[in-house]
Amino acid sequence: MSEPHDAPFRFRLEGRCGRARAGCFATPHGSFRTPAFMPVGTHGAVKAMTPEQVRATGAEIVLANTYHLALRPGEALVEKLGGLHDFMRWNGPILTDSGGFQVFSLPKKEIDDRGVRFRNEVDGSSMELTPERSIQIQNALGADIIMAFDECTPYPAEESLARRGVRRTLGWIERCLKAHARRGDQALFGIVQGSVYPHLRESCAQALVALDLPGYAIGGVSVGEGHELMCRVTEHCAPLLPETKPRYLMGVGLPEDLLAAIGYGIDLFDCVIPTRYARSGSVFTIRGRIRLTNRKYRRDAYPIDVSCDCEACAGGFSRAYIHHLFAANEILGAILASTHNVRFYQRLVASARAAVQEQRFDAFRREFLEGYAKDAGGKSAAKDAQLPL
Amino acid sequence: MSEPHDAPFRFRLEGRCGRARAGCFATPHGSFRTPAFMPVGTHGAVKAMTPEQVRATGAEIVLANTYHLALRPGEALVEKLGGLHDFMRWNGPILTDSGGFQVFSLPKKEIDDRGVRFRNEVDGSSMELTPERSIQIQNALGADIIMAFDECTPYPAEESLARRGVRRTLGWIERCLKAHARRGDQALFGIVQGSVYPHLRESCAQALVALDLPGYAIGGVSVGEGHELMCRVTEHCAPLLPETKPRYLMGVGLPEDLLAAIGYGIDLFDCVIPTRYARSGSVFTIRGRIRLTNRKYRRDAYPIDVSCDCEACAGGFSRAYIHHLFAANEILGAILASTHNVRFYQRLVASARAAVQEQRFDAFRREFLEGYAKDAGGKSAAKDAQLPL
Repeated sequence: MSEPHDAPFRFRLEGRCGRARAGCFATPHGSFRTPAFMPVGTHGAVKAMTPEQVRATGAEIVLANTYHLALRPGEALVEKLGGLHDFMRWNGPILTDSGGFQVFSLPKKEIDDRGVRFRNEVDGSSMELTPERSIQIQNALGADIIMAFDECTPYPAEESLARRGVRRTLGWIERCLKAHARRGDQALFGIVQGSVYPHLRESCAQALVALDLPGYAIGGVSVGEGHELMCRVTEHCAPLLPETKPRYLMGVGLPEDLLAAIGYGIDLFDCVIPTRYARSGSVFTIRGRIRLTNRKYRRDAYPIDVSCDCEACAGGFSRAYIHHLFAANEILGAILASTHNVRFYQRLVASARAAVQEQRFDAFRREFLEGYAKDAGGKSAAKDAQLPL
Repeated sequence: MSEPHDAPFRFRLEGRCGRARAGCFATPHGSFRTPAFMPVGTHGAVKAMTPEQVRATGAEIVLANTYHLALRPGEALVEKLGGLHDFMRWNGPILTDSGGFQVFSLPKKEIDDRGVRFRNEVDGSSMELTPERSIQIQNALGADIIMAFDECTPYPAEESLARRGVRRTLGWIERCLKAHARRGDQALFGIVQGSVYPHLRESCAQALVALDLPGYAIGGVSVGEGHELMCRVTEHCAPLLPETKPRYLMGVGLPEDLLAAIGYGIDLFDCVIPTRYARSGSVFTIRGRIRLTNRKYRRDAYPIDVSCDCEACAGGFSRAYIHHLFAANEILGAILASTHNVRFYQRLVASARAAVQEQRFDAFRREFLEGYAKDAGGKSAAKDAQLPL
């Protein structure tokens, strides 16, 4: 076995436009193009979609949650059944988070330099997550990209708390690397913490960059700080990371968040928004987000977005029909809305990538945001819609 | 417009084996082969499946419920949006029931010769369903086959109640025919009532046959009478109906029910069992029905049924994975189990049809039932499974 950040991982930059980048990351389960958006498969399944439907949206990589899979069905079982790719029938690249974000979000937990102790919400037993244990679980799951176990600083946080987060995160990455040393088929990404404190972000990034990891994430965002602060943190952090490595902004976000972050040089995203919103009937269109459960869509014969080629829109399902499915509590409503939203996100990042390669990213972003803000899905708007995507 | 039972409807018998039949029924939206099983799309959607997934199971006709669609979204809206085929994106044949079964199942209703009055469960208003109103709704929905509004006799029922059911059913079919007279693109099927009383079934069938309808159903079954009585009623009723018309056994049933009824000469079935059972994790295999939620499937690497070619089984999803999806309350569990069960039913009727055409229906049925009863899905059973289907 080789060192964790040897081949088979390779990040190739294929275009630049200002700070925005277009690239391609090779993994043992194939490559994904960047900017990339990862649909979230918390329990090893993207909610309300088959893997084939996920693939059909253009998604090339998915995310699964270490914390949830360790609790149920347990990483040993997943490993016995051939690893996460076989288990969930996704033969493309997979990224697992470290479980850190989830355990730090638990209401009751004990944290120290060793790790985090908490109660298992499935069987009530007491459990511990440490850097070593997180890597052990992620090794067993077998994702292509695995994440360092970090201390995710909440927002707002005093500087002292943010400093502790950076200190622990840097201590824990060393332990993660040691635990992971014998697996060459999984790339371990480090995570920059430091909350909203520029000098803390800098010192954290600097220390991580010195480790020459195969990729870097910006963590401690999407924790309630809002669009503006998220932008400021991202704009500050991205240039601290090596040009030659992929940059992942964790848990972000809305379409406008993604476009801002791509503009700052981010390559990789994950977020539950497209699937979670879909299950409550909230869908994205090039004119903005609309709630299909709203009574005004009861008689609307148009597809969700006339410019969309997803299974729901190209399949001719009307807003009125999907409105009806939600009113009747039919699962097909969630299926169609999820498929649409995930496809919307894939078109968004694919269009951003094309714009970067064609040196027109700023214009693309401006045009998208103008159309997106204008009118959230009125019938006439949908009818006239042009296709900036 | 022509009379309701002119072309474009045509039933062609393509094989016989004892009383069992293989046929083909042509409708304005294409033909379906018989014996046929209709997945149920209560609110205009087969639960947890896209129309494309339903088609991929081999289903050629689906059923939708007049009562539920009249309440929500209302037949006028469905008609405005192009009719039920366009609304639910199913371009093959559709059958709608009359709503009778649903309103007779309501806890509070008033029945007289005119029709049934009840409270609208969606908006609380008071509503009435009559033969004329049922046909009006079904005309607006636009299914290829529509059903007469009948009085469905509950089980058990005194003879006097069953007699009243037959009298009303026969009075109401005349009113249905009159209301439907101007639509030639929808075939109106009559329904034989009479509970478990042979002479009532006979007089009802005789009167309906005299009307020369394009098809006939046996109603008042699957109302709690059990397999044996259902068989006796079906065996008695089927030969009372014309050889040249399709025979539909309403709301039936389990695989063993279907095979018995096909043996008595039934051509058409509908039932919520495959989709409803699927959503609780109960799936059909050639060795019997198994509950995937059972702990014994937690580590089972086999597909639901190794002999199956459905999206779930051929797609390589393990019992362990689907068990996990149900444990984690993931919608994908219901999607995969529904797809499997509907495919199981389609293979069952397609295999029965092939056996009829090859003059080996009794042997097929015997072999199927022997394998089916033997062992409900033990791992070794699944491993060794041969393919009687």
